[in-house]
Amino acid sequence: MALRHLIDLNDCTVRDWDELIRLASDIRLNPTDYLSRCRGHIMATLFYEPSTRTQMSFQAAMLRLGGQIIGFDNPVNSSVSKGESLKDTIRIVSGYSDIIVMRHPQEGATKAASLFSLCPIINAGDGGHMHPTQTLTDLLTLSIEKGSLSGHTIGLCGDLRYGRTVHSLVTAMCKIGGNKFKLISTPELTLPQYVKDIMQKSGCEFSEANTLEECIGELDVLYMTRIQRERFSTPEAYECQRGVFVLDSAKMKKAKSDLVVLHPLPRVDEIAIEIDDDPRAAYFRQAANGMYARMALILNIIEENIELTQPEVTVGASNCPNPRCISHSEHYLPHYFKADAIGKSACAYCDEKAL
Amino acid sequence: MALRHLIDLNDCTVRDWDELIRLASDIRLNPTDYLSRCRGHIMATLFYEPSTRTQMSFQAAMLRLGGQIIGFDNPVNSSVSKGESLKDTIRIVSGYSDIIVMRHPQEGATKAASLFSLCPIINAGDGGHMHPTQTLTDLLTLSIEKGSLSGHTIGLCGDLRYGRTVHSLVTAMCKIGGNKFKLISTPELTLPQYVKDIMQKSGCEFSEANTLEECIGELDVLYMTRIQRERFSTPEAYECQRGVFVLDSAKMKKAKSDLVVLHPLPRVDEIAIEIDDDPRAAYFRQAANGMYARMALILNIIEENIELTQPEVTVGASNCPNPRCISHSEHYLPHYFKADAIGKSACAYCDEKAL
Amino acid sequence: MALRHLIDLNDCTVRDWDELIRLASDIRLNPTDYLSRCRGHIMATLFYEPSTRTQMSFQAAMLRLGGQIIGFDNPVNSSVSKGESLKDTIRIVSGYSDIIVMRHPQEGATKAASLFSLCPIINAGDGGHMHPTQTLTDLLTLSIEKGSLSGHTIGLCGDLRYGRTVHSLVTAMCKIGGNKFKLISTPELTLPQYVKDIMQKSGCEFSEANTLEECIGELDVLYMTRIQRERFSTPEAYECQRGVFVLDSAKMKKAKSDLVVLHPLPRVDEIAIEIDDDPRAAYFRQAANGMYARMALILNIIEENIELTQPEVTVGASNCPNPRCISHSEHYLPHYFKADAIGKSACAYCDEKAL
Repeated sequence: MALRHLIDLNDCTVRDWDELIRLASDIRLNPTDYLSRCRGHIMATLFYEPSTRTQMSFQAAMLRLGGQIIGFDNPVNSSVSKGESLKDTIRIVSGYSDIIVMRHPQEGATKAASLFSLCPIINAGDGGHMHPTQTLTDLLTLSIEKGSLSGHTIGLCGDLRYGRTVHSLVTAMCKIGGNKFKLISTPELTLPQYVKDIMQKSGCEFSEANTLEECIGELDVLYMTRIQRERFSTPEAYECQRGVFVLDSAKMKKAKSDLVVLHPLPRVDEIAIEIDDDPRAAYFRQAANGMYARMALILNIIEENIELTQPEVTVGASNCPNPRCISHSEHYLPHYFKADAIGKSACAYCDEKAL
Repeated sequence: MALRHLIDLNDCTVRDWDELIRLASDIRLNPTDYLSRCRGHIMATLFYEPSTRTQMSFQAAMLRLGGQIIGFDNPVNSSVSKGESLKDTIRIVSGYSDIIVMRHPQEGATKAASLFSLCPIINAGDGGHMHPTQTLTDLLTLSIEKGSLSGHTIGLCGDLRYGRTVHSLVTAMCKIGGNKFKLISTPELTLPQYVKDIMQKSGCEFSEANTLEECIGELDVLYMTRIQRERFSTPEAYECQRGVFVLDSAKMKKAKSDLVVLHPLPRVDEIAIEIDDDPRAAYFRQAANGMYARMALILNIIEENIELTQPEVTVGASNCPNPRCISHSEHYLPHYFKADAIGKSACAYCDEKAL
Repeated sequence: MALRHLIDLNDCTVRDWDELIRLASDIRLNPTDYLSRCRGHIMATLFYEPSTRTQMSFQAAMLRLGGQIIGFDNPVNSSVSKGESLKDTIRIVSGYSDIIVMRHPQEGATKAASLFSLCPIINAGDGGHMHPTQTLTDLLTLSIEKGSLSGHTIGLCGDLRYGRTVHSLVTAMCKIGGNKFKLISTPELTLPQYVKDIMQKSGCEFSEANTLEECIGELDVLYMTRIQRERFSTPEAYECQRGVFVLDSAKMKKAKSDLVVLHPLPRVDEIAIEIDDDPRAAYFRQAANGMYARMALILNIIEENIELTQPEVTVGASNCPNPRCISHSEHYLPHYFKADAIGKSACAYCDEKAL
């Protein structure tokens, strides 16, 4: 049987998402039932760039299942990341561990690692590409907070252009279906066309807005993200527009009483601290859910309860055009391509469209 | 029920100190009885500045109780300490863990963290403010080495002005009562007036000495600390006086046969290495006791066996005058003040007297 | 009973090597039988220089025996390595742990640490001196791959002058006996005379070769190491000779069908990546065996099943002549000397011959 890696949330089916959410919810309510389920298993957390919270969330998840952890979090001081190929490191570490959780600054690195690993790999973020356990956490939180994953008007606010968590969440919610989207951003930071194509193809309604204030009253869910200062077109645009995308008490007064406010965290100042005690502020509960979502995923992979399949690949003549793709620094990688969601050829590592 | 944090050893009563010492002594003699007492619990060690020995001592303590550990020790490489408020980090990490051990370079940081934590917090050192588990370790060691915590003549030697472990130990021993103190230091590095006030108020006798040699013969306990070179008034004073505060074999010859020599460690050269094999040198046993003291504390907090109460606070009009106080960098903190030991208003975070 | 440290593989007998190999092989086949054997024990991994793979291998080993781990891997950020003597750190940490695994950039550091430790110490590499668990891993791998440790023609290729793993392996295989060696290197990088003396004394045949190609067909085992560019006599020599010591498919075609290719890893380019899928390439299996070898060693030390004895020492008048020896920076160390394998006086820390 092929190894079961989770590189992209689409490596499993919507039915398996349901199973993961059901299991995570049960673990959350009955944690002591799961205390020994991964006893005797070791998880390696290979963090080629620091992401302390994500790493602690995965570590706490494994420990609460009775498993153990090894790993590194410190690429500069680690001998692993110096002068050794990703292939060799993964081949060796996968001989010590039963599951690998990996974060890497380059796009497609986790997929590349999965080609050589002797144990399953979970993608904990590969550059700007994918961060599937964040999306699983978002789905779990919506399920707990709203009781279902359909029938909602979902506002997405902030940097919709570069925010990978937003793209993944929209893609997932379109696959589930039955939701409407409100895209709240500056003209420069709107959602990429390919995500809009997915919404259109799935039949999910969406519309755009220039201010949070004008549409907050319609929303069932508000997913906040940060807009970095340098992403505004000019310093003047920043000064004049930034407040428009900050959630504060005044705006919350216009919101529904059962609005759910999410944020992948860390936040800077896009949510005023005064909102934290509002019962509609769900972002800290969302962070806590991250541990349960990861527990469900680790358990299902170790116990082999869900189907995880990787797309079929073909070998291309030339390399991926994306300079941030792992294939540009690990030269032994075959030039693998796959068919993407709409049937076009895309890099099997980083999903960049082939030229 | 309110959460039970240990920020200051005075958060619990002398009776609870006795209970902690009794439990630590029992764990030391019968460690296997405690192997599973914290099974299923996770401790996060959040070290915003490195303190490898303290962190290893806490980690070993939790592991020997059957618990597990996550955390960080490396503020520079940690994403947690960059651009995220202390509040947000604590809210998130306390969702993953059952107890947090925290060290921070700013005074009052642990108290600040306790306002937002979902689980108990233990102060493992907050700047020059408090390090209560060191003091608990000192008390445990005195109890083991001398059989009681009263009736001793205790010499305190070295930098008595800036050494927080000395201030805490004197304060604790005065609360217990029945001891005499000998303060051995340079004129520039004498004990602060507020600590002398505590001694006076508690009725504990004390006197000062300029050399270790002149009084070592009277002592039952000698608590050594280092004087940093730059703390002497002039380089000449350093060269001429330093030997006066160094413990060596010659001085030990004049000491009682049952003297107990303590040091919070690390030492530099204030105790000659030739003393290490003297049975009166208790500082390595003291370090080992640190693990048992921490086991007793963690166990009592997790099992909720001791009362831990925080002082009542009021909101002040202006902020704390201490520039090293956490309230100056985490701006969302309320300006909390409390009544200090002698009834005056003091910052609830760092204990600085209000203006 | 004296404490049982493993500083040098020669601290135990060939009969104990057999026992370690037998046990490691059994653990490899029946890992679940050993899941709780070190329950309640803590291993400290003190890595004064980073070696992520070695550290992870030791950590996974202890965790798979049911033990727990503390430690550091980051000398720059660690308060332990600043301003505290090796003696004090070891005295303190050995009070928290049941076994210490230590790596240090200075030669002889582990032996020095063993003088002060309250628990057994395993040498995980002390500068260019010893790395006994690598050699134990090599022996285990030969035993598994070839079925025995005698009767083989063993090629050693690359930097034979500075490669400590090669020296240790040759020394061990000579002690076991019944093998022939082929030394494949440049004239500048041949095996040191003292290792040749050991081969001669033990009656093991050896001969030298200038190219891998000329002798690969005779070999049962090929132990590859890297030659660093700066070790060639001139840049021209590097350009012209380097390919001669690189293992590729063309050379493998001339090799026996049951050749076993080993490498201590990490590799750079001395083994072409195309060899990885050749069943004769045993280096990744060798890395995986490292964990089992370490499990066997830890278990035997904790359960006190093997004899580990340190050589007798005498105090010399002057210090060791080797400037990289730990005795030059930790000044309190006694000037210990011992008799080496051929009866001459050598530094008890770093094995340098006395003047």
